[in-house]
Amino acid sequence: MKHLVLVAHGSRREASNEEVRRLAERLRQLAGERYADVTAAFLELAEPSIPGAIQCCIERGAHEVVVLPYFLSQGRHVANDIPEQVQPKQAEHPQVTITIAPYLGAAEEGIAALLLQLAH
Amino acid sequence: MKHLVLVAHGSRREASNEEVRRLAERLRQLAGERYADVTAAFLELAEPSIPGAIQCCIERGAHEVVVLPYFLSQGRHVANDIPEQVQPKQAEHPQVTITIAPYLGAAEEGIAALLLQLAH
Repeated sequence: MKHLVLVAHGSRREASNEEVRRLAERLRQLAGERYADVTAAFLELAEPSIPGAIQCCIERGAHEVVVLPYFLSQGRHVANDIPEQVQPKQAEHPQVTITIAPYLGAAEEGIAALLLQLAH
Repeated sequence: MKHLVLVAHGSRREASNEEVRRLAERLRQLAGERYADVTAAFLELAEPSIPGAIQCCIERGAHEVVVLPYFLSQGRHVANDIPEQVQPKQAEHPQVTITIAPYLGAAEEGIAALLLQLAH
């Protein structure tokens, strides 16, 4: 049983956090049987936290958790902060496979195509 | 003659700004004849600024400038800060049409599909 955790930065503006939660909900609909569940989590400023969301997946029976960074650039958050929050959970639950997928900005070609659509 | 300005937040980490400039370069290749040029600009912390980039497009002969926000959420930057930097340039050059395209995060379905690809 595989769960997906969409990780965003988190904002003081609750509407932005809600946008992320709605996107996670949309991913859940699109994922079909690939993921038993998809949830949103936040690096800071909003709940649930990354470790909290991972713990919740495990308690609900996940054998595999994929952490997906919803970030455009490969900065400190993607390179350091997210791995630092994931690693203790992996150490605590060695029977569960926890992986970090590439961040959104890494999908350069797809993003370039989307941007051109938006620009008309 | 239509120019596209890809606007990112800007980072103290120069590699992140370079990622945006490379993306603008990629857009220029993909745009074909739709845009005479595509350049990157930054809301803060990096150069060129938004007004500086727009001015440069106009000096190079643009009759139309499309400003494309490279942002995931509809926060203060997208709602207020970018329009506030664009409006004085429009007032200064009424003969040029300057429009702001939807921000990247508004392309929900496309982003959801990209995220699922990244998650495998």
